Amino acid sequence: MKKLVIIGAGFGGLYTAKQMDHEDFEITLVDKTNHHLFQPLLYQVATAALTSADICTPIRKILCKQENTLVLMSRVTRIDKANREIHLHNHQPLPYDILVVSTGVHHYYFGHNEWEKYAPGLKTLNDALTIRDKLLFNFEKAELCDRYSDAQKYLSFIIVGGGPTGVELAGAVAEIANHTLVENFKKIDPSSAKVYLVEAAPRLLPSMPEKLGVKAKKDLEQLGVEVITGQMVTDITPHGVQVGNRFIKATNTIWAAGTEASTLLKTLDVPLDRVGRVIVEPDLSIPGNPEIFVIGDAAHCKGKDGNPLPAVAPVAMQQATFVARLIKKNLVGKCDKPFSYTDLGTMATIGRSKAVAQIGNLVFTGFLAWCLWSAVHLMHIILFRNRIKVLIDWIHGYITGHRGARVIRNPSEEDFREELSRIK
Amino acid sequence: MKKLVIIGAGFGGLYTAKQMDHEDFEITLVDKTNHHLFQPLLYQVATAALTSADICTPIRKILCKQENTLVLMSRVTRIDKANREIHLHNHQPLPYDILVVSTGVHHYYFGHNEWEKYAPGLKTLNDALTIRDKLLFNFEKAELCDRYSDAQKYLSFIIVGGGPTGVELAGAVAEIANHTLVENFKKIDPSSAKVYLVEAAPRLLPSMPEKLGVKAKKDLEQLGVEVITGQMVTDITPHGVQVGNRFIKATNTIWAAGTEASTLLKTLDVPLDRVGRVIVEPDLSIPGNPEIFVIGDAAHCKGKDGNPLPAVAPVAMQQATFVARLIKKNLVGKCDKPFSYTDLGTMATIGRSKAVAQIGNLVFTGFLAWCLWSAVHLMHIILFRNRIKVLIDWIHGYITGHRGARVIRNPSEEDFREELSRIK
Repeated sequence: MKKLVIIGAGFGGLYTAKQMDHEDFEITLVDKTNHHLFQPLLYQVATAALTSADICTPIRKILCKQENTLVLMSRVTRIDKANREIHLHNHQPLPYDILVVSTGVHHYYFGHNEWEKYAPGLKTLNDALTIRDKLLFNFEKAELCDRYSDAQKYLSFIIVGGGPTGVELAGAVAEIANHTLVENFKKIDPSSAKVYLVEAAPRLLPSMPEKLGVKAKKDLEQLGVEVITGQMVTDITPHGVQVGNRFIKATNTIWAAGTEASTLLKTLDVPLDRVGRVIVEPDLSIPGNPEIFVIGDAAHCKGKDGNPLPAVAPVAMQQATFVARLIKKNLVGKCDKPFSYTDLGTMATIGRSKAVAQIGNLVFTGFLAWCLWSAVHLMHIILFRNRIKVLIDWIHGYITGHRGARVIRNPSEEDFREELSRIK
Repeated sequence: MKKLVIIGAGFGGLYTAKQMDHEDFEITLVDKTNHHLFQPLLYQVATAALTSADICTPIRKILCKQENTLVLMSRVTRIDKANREIHLHNHQPLPYDILVVSTGVHHYYFGHNEWEKYAPGLKTLNDALTIRDKLLFNFEKAELCDRYSDAQKYLSFIIVGGGPTGVELAGAVAEIANHTLVENFKKIDPSSAKVYLVEAAPRLLPSMPEKLGVKAKKDLEQLGVEVITGQMVTDITPHGVQVGNRFIKATNTIWAAGTEASTLLKTLDVPLDRVGRVIVEPDLSIPGNPEIFVIGDAAHCKGKDGNPLPAVAPVAMQQATFVARLIKKNLVGKCDKPFSYTDLGTMATIGRSKAVAQIGNLVFTGFLAWCLWSAVHLMHIILFRNRIKVLIDWIHGYITGHRGARVIRNPSEEDFREELSRIK
């Protein structure tokens, strides 16, 4: 039986696997975590609205009825094209006849890896929990300060990157300060927190129609966010961020700007783009090896306008369907038509009843866009049980303004000590 | 206005604070986390049935309407009786007129601190998440093994300590293996996992009537747990546990045996018992300082039978009520009657429809005890929203056998590497 190996259980890898159900293949799906992460809602875990279990579904549970598919939790270290096998951290090499690589991206600091320590990015569950801990802990630290000027330093939040993730984070952080935490503190006023959103491009949401970028800016400003566009971040320190000529003091910075593809792709030994993505053939295979496909965020695949397709779930899912069809129909290496993306639109939420959306030539804003956003995301959450729990949390949050997952994991001695040395 | 300082927001500290609402005191509640932990259900987080947000409630949210109470998230380093102030890690000293110490316990390895690495205990949220990760990761590691003998090592689970926590953990781990994970793996059979419960005393649940210990053993054995009583654990290594003359191979050991009171109590400079608890006066104050109270698990307080009261939530809550009354009625130092514990019974759950309970002279087992256990625990969860979510999870788990929080937080490079070296 032919061996199909899939690396990564994000939208690309998981949907490829699911579509191979009942097919005459021996399928192995490898992921370094045990869960499929519903990444579009990851910022809601980072901002305490949802819990990790709401958006992380065990891969084995999703595929438990699929008899032809083995799920392995492991880290792939190398792809050996010549011998048609992949090397794993804790397993002997896995041979394949067909390989689908869907390894996604991680944050990229434009060569400034030292920024990561002060400005964590948001790609994995751990990232989200780290950001949540930091965010909530900062309000706690502010409450411990005796002087207003000390407290203020902890009440400044900078989000770098004005794409959908940055916009959604900025809106959520502002809502935490203005609604969720209000009346929860005695010494500080959480709503005095300053939230900054910095984007190097001239406007927010550069990948969406201009009207929506303008609307998002207006909505965010209404929530008290200071939106800074057309300015580059040139330095990030433990004390703040240098934005153009201005140094903004803040101990809490979140990175939502650059991303870079997995370094595993380098072992494919094919041309990569500037951010490490594989420049794929029209059938999504790699040059010279029609049996290896790269899909999702890891692929640089040109759209109708000549620009690379955006790094969003629908692209990965459509590519999964495309590749699964080729494999099922025995069309690998003899593809009949190139992959073509059907753009179903994009959307971003800004806050309660506030969102922007584009579907074809139509644009929506405000409450209608927000309902649309909520419905589309809810629909795509994998388990019915999780859908119900997210819905309850959203309704509860909508009515009360509360967020259900305001948990700081126990800080270590080190966290406290670091603080002590800073305050002194 | 008189200053009341409370250390610890467990059942003792939080309930003391709550009962001081509207009183003419300046109250400060200090805890090193931001949440009140509903510890009786912590084992359900460790075994993936509940999420952390279900049982962790922000302390500030619980007390947000209580105008006289300041909540600080900080670590207390020292109590200075002479100057009537407590020292904090990241704050200037806090003066008090009355001090309530409710700092709980942590695990105690009987002088073998090196065991902690291989046998984590279950007291904090982090502990529970660590145990959950380890538990689920072990099944993943087993699926990666080529030889049955290698896999078996990962499918052995040892729980040390046959009190309520140990019994509940053993039952839950057996259910994970026999129900939750069944059909989720292709190479291994999760139900072939071996679960051992080791207790040094001659029987399980030594603090409960003998009949219940016998019933718990029978129920656990029905779930496939091997119960070993009357045997001491003499060594714990990365490869297994020495129980009497027998070495049981296992890479997954959980510690539910000894506990020890917080080291902070040593700074009180009063007599402590064998496990570091303060031997309190009949009014729960410390000898020589009637303005300092120690309550909850941190206190060694004799019951009617001359034995120290058990480390359970009802004791802490009743002590909180007792101390709050003394403070409110201005009876500090001139207590009219000693603290007396009203035993409302004890209970432990073993698995689906299986529990044991004792209320006064009545003992219950099986489904009735399980319903009782569920109702009592649900009733005591602090927020209505959390009650609903736990109820949904329980009903869903009861019907399907699934567990809603089967998430392994992203393992680090190190986790994978450690595994690699072990397998090789």
